[in-house]
Amino acid sequence: MRYARPLAQLIEQLEKLPGIGPKSAQRLAFHILRASQEENQRLATAILEVKAKTRYCQRCFNFSEEDLCPICQDARRDQSVICVVADPRDLTAIENSGEFRGVYHVLQGLLSPIEGVLPDQLRVRELIERVKSGTVKEVILAMNPTVEGDATALFLSGELKPLGVKVTQLAMGLPVGGDLDYADQVTIARAVAWRREI
Amino acid sequence: MRYARPLAQLIEQLEKLPGIGPKSAQRLAFHILRASQEENQRLATAILEVKAKTRYCQRCFNFSEEDLCPICQDARRDQSVICVVADPRDLTAIENSGEFRGVYHVLQGLLSPIEGVLPDQLRVRELIERVKSGTVKEVILAMNPTVEGDATALFLSGELKPLGVKVTQLAMGLPVGGDLDYADQVTIARAVAWRREI
Repeated sequence: MRYARPLAQLIEQLEKLPGIGPKSAQRLAFHILRASQEENQRLATAILEVKAKTRYCQRCFNFSEEDLCPICQDARRDQSVICVVADPRDLTAIENSGEFRGVYHVLQGLLSPIEGVLPDQLRVRELIERVKSGTVKEVILAMNPTVEGDATALFLSGELKPLGVKVTQLAMGLPVGGDLDYADQVTIARAVAWRREI
Repeated sequence: MRYARPLAQLIEQLEKLPGIGPKSAQRLAFHILRASQEENQRLATAILEVKAKTRYCQRCFNFSEEDLCPICQDARRDQSVICVVADPRDLTAIENSGEFRGVYHVLQGLLSPIEGVLPDQLRVRELIERVKSGTVKEVILAMNPTVEGDATALFLSGELKPLGVKVTQLAMGLPVGGDLDYADQVTIARAVAWRREI
């Protein structure tokens, strides 16, 4: 036994967190040991309360403290444009861009027949209900440009188009600040195919 | 407000930890949100208890749950050889090597006149008392090979040698598995100067 038991226990618990290896766990544990008890109390409280106080927005399935999330509650957001994302992190990434003023729909995953993720496990039915309600003009499919993301987008587009709604997807091409020389072939191919007049 | 308040609070608390940026804090928060409440309870308890239950070993000043740390209590350890380290992390690094069977003395820092760290702020007096007690035959100075580490080792060696104890320091040279071509000049210079017959 190399560390005092309470310290060893803290390191053990921290190591269970994703991306936290033994070294990081040790560094964090020493920090917590040196921090004030008030700070540690705030951290512990936040950890304990997050599950109990967080639920899903009943409309878009983003995490929310109330029945409807702040975005769905916001009257200034355009409720006729729905951006469909796989999970709340993608939602935050799009929000941070500041470019989108519509509302969201969080699928809570991507289709993956290999891993047994079928449309029933995602919030697909709820999305279709929202579109059927009639006020939606456009659905933006904002999945990651991966095999699962593309498969999910293709499936959703097949479900949504017959409902008479405009279905779009995020543009693919060169990342801003990127380097043509370092871009992969598929990205360049997309950038050429999706080129636009200036 | 992009995240539900409890989630935002957790992210805010996690971001205060060293080496945890906004992205990592977000990733950890989502993990905690998905983890079971029992797991979160164990993590929170470990955070809350670590300060209250951890104190310093009265002999070597390593972190300890009891008055004496497990190493100082261990009758199989050679109490006549003391390895002096700057902090408990260095102690763990040496323990993990499995090479040392003596006991330790944790200075709780390194001398740094620029930052105002003087011998009085470290556990120097306690080290000298231990050596004076008469059972100590060798003191190994195991500071990092840095400016502060070297200065601390030099200072301690000046204090300890007059007490008639053998004072040694860790060997410097090429790291095992290292590459001569990538080693810095100072390391190679030490490796040459400290060479030994095979």
